[in-house]
Amino acid sequence: MSLMLAEIQQQPMALERTIRREGKRIKRFAESIAKRRPQLIVLVARGSSDNAALFGRYLLEISTGIPVSLAAPGVHTLYHTKMRLQDALVVGISQSGEGPDVNIVLENAKQSGAHTIAITNAADSAMAQLADETFLIHAGRERSVAATKTYTGQLVIFHMLAAALNGNQGFAEVERLPELAAQSLELRPHIETMVERYAYMNQCVVVGRGLNYANAYEFAIKLMETCYVVAERFSSADFLHGPIAMVERDFPAFLFAPPGKTLQGMQDLLGKLNKLGAETVVISSEKAALKLASRTLQIPSRIEESLTPIPYIIPAQLFAALLAKAKGLSPDSPRSLAKVTKTV
Amino acid sequence: MSLMLAEIQQQPMALERTIRREGKRIKRFAESIAKRRPQLIVLVARGSSDNAALFGRYLLEISTGIPVSLAAPGVHTLYHTKMRLQDALVVGISQSGEGPDVNIVLENAKQSGAHTIAITNAADSAMAQLADETFLIHAGRERSVAATKTYTGQLVIFHMLAAALNGNQGFAEVERLPELAAQSLELRPHIETMVERYAYMNQCVVVGRGLNYANAYEFAIKLMETCYVVAERFSSADFLHGPIAMVERDFPAFLFAPPGKTLQGMQDLLGKLNKLGAETVVISSEKAALKLASRTLQIPSRIEESLTPIPYIIPAQLFAALLAKAKGLSPDSPRSLAKVTKTV
Repeated sequence: MSLMLAEIQQQPMALERTIRREGKRIKRFAESIAKRRPQLIVLVARGSSDNAALFGRYLLEISTGIPVSLAAPGVHTLYHTKMRLQDALVVGISQSGEGPDVNIVLENAKQSGAHTIAITNAADSAMAQLADETFLIHAGRERSVAATKTYTGQLVIFHMLAAALNGNQGFAEVERLPELAAQSLELRPHIETMVERYAYMNQCVVVGRGLNYANAYEFAIKLMETCYVVAERFSSADFLHGPIAMVERDFPAFLFAPPGKTLQGMQDLLGKLNKLGAETVVISSEKAALKLASRTLQIPSRIEESLTPIPYIIPAQLFAALLAKAKGLSPDSPRSLAKVTKTV
Repeated sequence: MSLMLAEIQQQPMALERTIRREGKRIKRFAESIAKRRPQLIVLVARGSSDNAALFGRYLLEISTGIPVSLAAPGVHTLYHTKMRLQDALVVGISQSGEGPDVNIVLENAKQSGAHTIAITNAADSAMAQLADETFLIHAGRERSVAATKTYTGQLVIFHMLAAALNGNQGFAEVERLPELAAQSLELRPHIETMVERYAYMNQCVVVGRGLNYANAYEFAIKLMETCYVVAERFSSADFLHGPIAMVERDFPAFLFAPPGKTLQGMQDLLGKLNKLGAETVVISSEKAALKLASRTLQIPSRIEESLTPIPYIIPAQLFAALLAKAKGLSPDSPRSLAKVTKTV
């Protein structure tokens, strides 16, 4: 078994551990800043962690109404801009905690008076030393180059942070996530058969929206780095503003279609893609969406939309890991990549 | 000649007109808000206008230090979040001014006390009616579905807005842009020959960083919608965090390598791509970068980095329009697309 597959399977336990060990600390943190509420939240990350940040952006804006900006590290590292971040909460997200660019942004933010948080899997990392607060992902060491358990670990920290900033509402729901993750893992035998069909797929598009937009990016990056599939990623709205022109018969589309606010739009897009003769693969619990799809990854039970991102990315992680195997590739050591990428 | 090509050629005049007619109004606007400086700038757009917003994000942060957030329209249109935007300057960018989602965000922002600006090509559009201020792109009607002269028109408005918010410094430089745009148009005969090589290209990657990161997105969307080429777009830093694993011999990389802060990183990436045996096409005035490339789009003169985005996107626009022609396609009416895409 590849390290990637083994680490995918560890997710329910890693999530459970992270909730148990960090929940109270995150609640206390929210209480400590209740009097001086941030005017702005800035998230800074690279790679898969940046996809987690994209989820954090939607979740935090939706649950708190505080505007969120995804930092452009180059503004700090290349252009050396002194940003006005004194009323901001600046959150660095990094598996290793050693990304130089992310740490430079955190350092600048701290100097300009911002309150800083590190979300990392490495308690003794440079980022953890640097930040005012550290929330740890208790995922254990991640050995596969392709991040899986640290991505969902970052997501669950954002779930808790959003709950905490929202007057500590919603913690009970977050505690359901390890069980929901375990249910998604049961799709593995189905996916193992299904990937055979895609052994010679060279390109595809992945579409998600709202709270599952980040998952589209994350599924695409997994397909690119472990299967060398050229995977475009879009929100359903952006996809209609141009790139849908690319879709042809041999260009399958993977869609995240959870119940909730984005479902109708995804069904409309599925209708359009069917008219174009495109093959579609839908990740959903909803019959209305599944019946429009060429192939399905059916989530066992209907989950409240805000909790879907973790249980919905797991079938996609399994798909990438098993497709890599079907293609005769090792997902653990992609060519041209190292576990810790140091960019500035 | 396609409408797209004709409109590409109109850019020097359109830019000149926009600078002449809007410059003073933008200066006055900046003076009027000098006492109540925004704490945050939020940009909201879709499609090519969203690429222009990505440029605006870098330019405004670098020149003013005010944090900028690219709005996620779905937070407003799908999740109906009441955002705290009272101290923000919220800028809608839309060619037609009729995108329902962009206008909903502007309306919500106005209700929550934000100051709102419209950047549009349509003086009598819904967006222009709605916003507190309107800065017009004087591009004339854009008839091609593929936006070109309105993209650079949006860029020049951002140049002026950044200069205005920066104490009205830098207006004289902006006035050089029409001439620099005209110089780039002289590359047309070279590009006309060059595109023959790419008549059967199906996929590629486009890389830019910092102030030219938006151009990577814009070039990619043009290749997708007019040539049906699967074009991935990345910053050079993000590209190294995973997707570089995809690159193979038949997967050319197009790189924006202007002089300035991003040049060294682009040269490093070119070195890596050469080792992987990838074909590279470099848009640059700089010999050090051009000599590392398989093919070149040489910008005639060295331009200060902050002014490069408009003269550097023009060869890319020409490339897309002429490649479409070489592929026997009409760039003016891509399949599945209408000029005004209405998403919510």
